[in-house]
Amino acid sequence: MTSQRFELWAPYAVQVELVLGGQFFPMPSEGGGWFAVEADADPGDGYGFSLDGADPLPDPRSAWQPNGPHELSRVVDHPAFQWSDGLWKGAPLAGAVIYELHIGTFTTEGTFDAAIERLPYLRDLGITAIELLPVAEFSGEHGWGYDGVDLFAPHHAYGGPDGLKRLVDACHAQGLAVIMDVVYNHLGPSGNYLSRFGPYFTQRYATPWGEAVNFDGPGSPGVRAFFIENALMWLDDYHCDGLRLDAVHAILDSSALHILEEIALNVERLSNHLGRDLFLIAESDLNDPRIIQRREAGGYGMDAQWSDDFHHALHACVTGETNGYYADFGDLEHLAIALQEAFVYAGRYSSFRDRVHGRQPVGISGSRFLGYIQNHDQIGNRATGDRLSAIVPSELLKVAAALVLTAPFVPMLFHGEEWGATAPFLYFTDHPDEDLGRAVSEGRKREFEAFGWDPASIPDPQSRETFMRSKLDWEEAQREPHSELLDWYRDLIRLRRSLPELSDGDLASVEVFFDEDQRALVMQRGSVTVACNFSDSEVEVPAEGSDPVPPAMSSGAEPVWENGALVLPPTSVSIWTN
Amino acid sequence: MTSQRFELWAPYAVQVELVLGGQFFPMPSEGGGWFAVEADADPGDGYGFSLDGADPLPDPRSAWQPNGPHELSRVVDHPAFQWSDGLWKGAPLAGAVIYELHIGTFTTEGTFDAAIERLPYLRDLGITAIELLPVAEFSGEHGWGYDGVDLFAPHHAYGGPDGLKRLVDACHAQGLAVIMDVVYNHLGPSGNYLSRFGPYFTQRYATPWGEAVNFDGPGSPGVRAFFIENALMWLDDYHCDGLRLDAVHAILDSSALHILEEIALNVERLSNHLGRDLFLIAESDLNDPRIIQRREAGGYGMDAQWSDDFHHALHACVTGETNGYYADFGDLEHLAIALQEAFVYAGRYSSFRDRVHGRQPVGISGSRFLGYIQNHDQIGNRATGDRLSAIVPSELLKVAAALVLTAPFVPMLFHGEEWGATAPFLYFTDHPDEDLGRAVSEGRKREFEAFGWDPASIPDPQSRETFMRSKLDWEEAQREPHSELLDWYRDLIRLRRSLPELSDGDLASVEVFFDEDQRALVMQRGSVTVACNFSDSEVEVPAEGSDPVPPAMSSGAEPVWENGALVLPPTSVSIWTN
Repeated sequence: MTSQRFELWAPYAVQVELVLGGQFFPMPSEGGGWFAVEADADPGDGYGFSLDGADPLPDPRSAWQPNGPHELSRVVDHPAFQWSDGLWKGAPLAGAVIYELHIGTFTTEGTFDAAIERLPYLRDLGITAIELLPVAEFSGEHGWGYDGVDLFAPHHAYGGPDGLKRLVDACHAQGLAVIMDVVYNHLGPSGNYLSRFGPYFTQRYATPWGEAVNFDGPGSPGVRAFFIENALMWLDDYHCDGLRLDAVHAILDSSALHILEEIALNVERLSNHLGRDLFLIAESDLNDPRIIQRREAGGYGMDAQWSDDFHHALHACVTGETNGYYADFGDLEHLAIALQEAFVYAGRYSSFRDRVHGRQPVGISGSRFLGYIQNHDQIGNRATGDRLSAIVPSELLKVAAALVLTAPFVPMLFHGEEWGATAPFLYFTDHPDEDLGRAVSEGRKREFEAFGWDPASIPDPQSRETFMRSKLDWEEAQREPHSELLDWYRDLIRLRRSLPELSDGDLASVEVFFDEDQRALVMQRGSVTVACNFSDSEVEVPAEGSDPVPPAMSSGAEPVWENGALVLPPTSVSIWTN
Repeated sequence: MTSQRFELWAPYAVQVELVLGGQFFPMPSEGGGWFAVEADADPGDGYGFSLDGADPLPDPRSAWQPNGPHELSRVVDHPAFQWSDGLWKGAPLAGAVIYELHIGTFTTEGTFDAAIERLPYLRDLGITAIELLPVAEFSGEHGWGYDGVDLFAPHHAYGGPDGLKRLVDACHAQGLAVIMDVVYNHLGPSGNYLSRFGPYFTQRYATPWGEAVNFDGPGSPGVRAFFIENALMWLDDYHCDGLRLDAVHAILDSSALHILEEIALNVERLSNHLGRDLFLIAESDLNDPRIIQRREAGGYGMDAQWSDDFHHALHACVTGETNGYYADFGDLEHLAIALQEAFVYAGRYSSFRDRVHGRQPVGISGSRFLGYIQNHDQIGNRATGDRLSAIVPSELLKVAAALVLTAPFVPMLFHGEEWGATAPFLYFTDHPDEDLGRAVSEGRKREFEAFGWDPASIPDPQSRETFMRSKLDWEEAQREPHSELLDWYRDLIRLRRSLPELSDGDLASVEVFFDEDQRALVMQRGSVTVACNFSDSEVEVPAEGSDPVPPAMSSGAEPVWENGALVLPPTSVSIWTN
């Protein structure tokens, strides 16, 4: 037993007691809503806090909830972990190839430790960083993770704090960085006790998913400190290399120092202190360069953001889909704009939004955008969680992959994308609370019924089968036709990593030719040329010179030169590197 | 009769008719929610719009509502007015001395034309610009103007469009600029028909005064166009020189191009087009430099903002009041910070707000702030509308005035302040709707009852006497002791305008010495020294040299030099200019 300091910010409480080993320890007030006490405890010991004599609640900053969010917290000794990554110094985001993965479905076991076994595969594929869907403790055994409630506790079913540390340590040993998805815009619907402790939430704003966090009202200094500390914890205590901040457009803050900027400022300080690269990636629906603009220029100083416009433009060109937000896309012109300016909607009227959307990211590098053709949302928010490989032929998958991996953005794959995994990525939950579970199931059905779907065809999020069906089948990756697609991805990643100009993010030098009618697009980036034919017919595109140079890569037959033009085979992509 | 084009944005309507002279003219749709028709009409003709067969409504862009907001609009021919200010080219805001005035109480008649008679007085006082409380048509005959509902129509009781034009023209003839207060954060509670026409309002945000304006949701392009057009109208059709945007913290807009920035951009274009100085002044509760930061540096590009922190710091030092937001002020240190950094709360914890507030306006000139010790809000939002002259002795008024007029900010007075007018500035309304009127009266009483006031002592906003009591008594200005204070103000303004360094806005060169215990503060701005003694005792302050230089101005007895120190008489201020 060693003496531990237990601290709690609970401005709503008058008297607070630590509950530990069946005993109650009064916690003197330290001012500013803080209470603290020293008590003897060992790692793993259960504890909670009793506010004004009420039943004990878990610690808002609990590091471990082995029995879920409603039970006692457990003592964790972060410094006790034996790290072996002392030489790891991180790597700049601009040169990264990111792999988004969900711990629960990435492996059969669905744990951090099981994921470790797949790291050599990722390294061989050429991946340089994994991005984990949120792992903060949530209600139930499985779920996407965006309903986290114990934001400082890695999910118990994934393996808890030690499991995550083992995964990060193993990643670093393989030369892989780790990016953690964190949700700072709301908390999940079950197990969220924060409002018992203090003014964590506000009614001044609303989010689609739950109460908005109070980043700018009375009492907000303690709330901001909570979230800043959380961001730093993943980077410091867990050695993560970056964070992906979920839906920052729902982080509403009228403060002169926006919480995103304050987080960026603190992460920069930690990076300097630790002497390793740390970065922040935002998911933003705003098309507002301010998010990624540097702080000296009036921005919030995030390092990068997801580039949904590039996704939507490419997805609409590949699938022909025009529903929902794809109504704003579908022309090769949209894709050309995305490749050259990142935001397609940069001050233009969006019919889907019925408003003018976005702003040009003037002077901002393409390396400040993540480019992808699939991610958990774009797959999982479809009614039946179908991956692109379930919708379009492999020839088009190859065209899309080639553009993602030669684009001026930091490329990101979604787990299994590289071999066209047959497992869908469905929306799944596991709320033990029956009313909540039923509400989630029915809400999902209603949501898609409104779009004309037969509710009976919508997988039930609460069904265990929905979760199990979403797990990757790793054996299929070695079989045709999956292995062929896998080779294509591996070759593309190798090409990207072998040509520094592909990672230079220089949007100004991207040249794009496109023929809307014939569905052909040619992108030129320095000495690299990528010629795409989205149609199922041969297409002629103008080409300089008459001396046929063989492409470095072709998805099918090689193009031929005829009469000073290049004839692209149907549904194909070829890449020249000189 | 001449043919006029009538236009209307009414996206909620299917069929629209112009109602004119008892006739109905179908208005063909022009797309995007716009309808238009040509019809013969003369200036002054009444007209309205019938949406889908309903009774006619006034025009949302009505230029004249001679019978109030519920009646028909009238045709106005803006270009027909005979302007005589062709040589007027405006003047930079940095050198201005502003006079805030309320048309209804500035004169006995309460009209634009009556105000014209006072312009020679303002010119002689040294004023360079008047700032009008909002004049947009509101419910009733008199009111402050912040409940405007016909944003394009100068209030009928003030004299309507021609009256305002005559006032602006007369101002320019006297060398006075005109700043118009405009309210873009909400509309008044009576006579607001906008939501019948289109999505002008949103439930996504809330304001304390009414529905928030929809600047960023579906349909917002038409709403933004409405407000941008309004801003340009005052500057172009009415020849105003600037706008004061009310409570911009309640203008909520998540667009990548904030509506404030879009307004600034459009005003800049108009300024270039017209070849005269136009400026935008924000009232902001955010202490966020972004509001006034230039657009190239990530700001919204407003030219200036009101400086409440300077007001609060000075008011608290002069009055000793500590209630409400004055709890964050009261020390000379606060005043010293305000004089040197504009924002006292610039990233500091505010106990009144219980949060960290503001941000340092790094590199921003003091000329981008308006400095004042009184304004309509700071007087009128007191229970009994008492001016500073009703609270503190004239010696302290003189100290406060000296600091306002030598500070690095653009000084602003409130009408009558310069002679310590005995009229209060009460909160008055004139809602013809009895229920609304009663609600306003009772709300006002309840508001102050909550702060311990006897509700019977709160003047009834709906009582005509409350309005009449607030009118200036111009005759008293010539009588002692008023005339003495008036001379003091006139001399201070003359001093400010004669010394360019007082208007250079150079915050970095402001030096301040203060002695908190003795209540003395000395400000040095280049060659100008301002020595203030807030206490009623003699105070010694350190002074360089031993050669007594006589001050250029002293509010009472002149300070004397003793033993290398300067002895300031009780409750006094002296100003040296060399």
